[in-house]
Amino acid sequence: MAMEKKTAAVIVIGNEILSGRTHDVNTNFIAKAMTAKGIQLTEARVVPDDFDLIIEAVNLMRERYDYVFTTGGIGPTHDDMSAEAIARAFGVKLVQHESAYQMLLDYYKDESKLNDARLKMTYLPEGSDMIINKVTGAPGFKIGNVYAMAGVPKIMQAMVESLLPSLAGGVKIYSISVTVNLVESQIADILQKLEEDNDGVEIGSYPSFKDGIGKVSAVIRGPDKEKLEHVSKALQHAFIDLGGSILEVKEL
Amino acid sequence: MAMEKKTAAVIVIGNEILSGRTHDVNTNFIAKAMTAKGIQLTEARVVPDDFDLIIEAVNLMRERYDYVFTTGGIGPTHDDMSAEAIARAFGVKLVQHESAYQMLLDYYKDESKLNDARLKMTYLPEGSDMIINKVTGAPGFKIGNVYAMAGVPKIMQAMVESLLPSLAGGVKIYSISVTVNLVESQIADILQKLEEDNDGVEIGSYPSFKDGIGKVSAVIRGPDKEKLEHVSKALQHAFIDLGGSILEVKEL
Repeated sequence: MAMEKKTAAVIVIGNEILSGRTHDVNTNFIAKAMTAKGIQLTEARVVPDDFDLIIEAVNLMRERYDYVFTTGGIGPTHDDMSAEAIARAFGVKLVQHESAYQMLLDYYKDESKLNDARLKMTYLPEGSDMIINKVTGAPGFKIGNVYAMAGVPKIMQAMVESLLPSLAGGVKIYSISVTVNLVESQIADILQKLEEDNDGVEIGSYPSFKDGIGKVSAVIRGPDKEKLEHVSKALQHAFIDLGGSILEVKEL
Repeated sequence: MAMEKKTAAVIVIGNEILSGRTHDVNTNFIAKAMTAKGIQLTEARVVPDDFDLIIEAVNLMRERYDYVFTTGGIGPTHDDMSAEAIARAFGVKLVQHESAYQMLLDYYKDESKLNDARLKMTYLPEGSDMIINKVTGAPGFKIGNVYAMAGVPKIMQAMVESLLPSLAGGVKIYSISVTVNLVESQIADILQKLEEDNDGVEIGSYPSFKDGIGKVSAVIRGPDKEKLEHVSKALQHAFIDLGGSILEVKEL
């Protein structure tokens, strides 16, 4: 079992997220997929359709993390600039990929339908491998540790599913969430003490409010499942001693 | 009317977003608020509860953009490190704010209830101004051009609403969205040509798929409303000439 820690980053590319028109759902999907795989998603960025900002993010992230996933900007229109930007980040040219051309031809059936806009999608950074897109024919690509995927959630999700088996997972991290009808400032000391006393266990605290009533979920995370269960029990006892009621205990 | 372009960035602070447990909704709220105000949200980042990554993001963003909004990490628990991290980013100390103490006392009514965890929330970076939080008493703060706000969406939203009047708006940007039952590769040339021919107009292209049927929304954005309407009409004519049906025209 690989025990090395693996890390990842997401770069969401697109003005529509930053203008508020579109709500990004891709980061959450990738976050869950990485967590399940034992890979730690460590940063996420949303950048506009802007060469400089895309290149900056790609070059920083690919140095810093094991895997970098970009979403958006691989289509046929003028605002789709991910392939060009990522090629520039790697200092390579865009070249027509035979396999991408074939995929598009299979999709459109007829060579006369491959207009300039469609042909644009057959040009990928030199040295990259194609990521197949059965939904619309526009391929994603992998270059180095960077995976450039579609922005449309359904396509992006299919691409991630197809990539997952090829990624080396790290340490599998388990989580238990304990929700109680207390407020954070009542339980802060307990959380801190239990985290300090249990190496390799991380405890996050997530308050929420409904109709003015506060509750908190303490999320215990770590690679050692038995230790998590021990901490979970200790937390529940401490919450009860403070006068709280346990609302939910859930393995995530 | 102020015509200078104003820019903003968001830093979402919290492991829970990166593990996939929580879906970030704050970026979209801030994006819409900025767009309405004529401020261009130019970057968004999600960083974990990690001093180095928070400090890096804060220092880069506050240099680069007019306004920086952080969400998350201002509560009483050990994983709430925004105040300390932002103080370090600015090279100042955390000091107890009289007004924050008073706000907490007003909230809890009784001095004996101000335990260490609650008192932690009265310490803000030296030289910062408090942002009021009527929901839970934990104040946000403003230092320089950085606005540190709660992560809980309802509280964050109240904080943004209260701040908006104090922000200098830039150029108001209007948007018209034209949705058609064509696919991107059919309309790519038209979009590019219309954008090139109309200075100050930006056209984004957002494909979507439902039950295998593709459609595209072309979003025309710019400060000159009349020009947008001209481009919108030109687009609709071109889409019809291509055999498409206009599904929706909407001012955003």
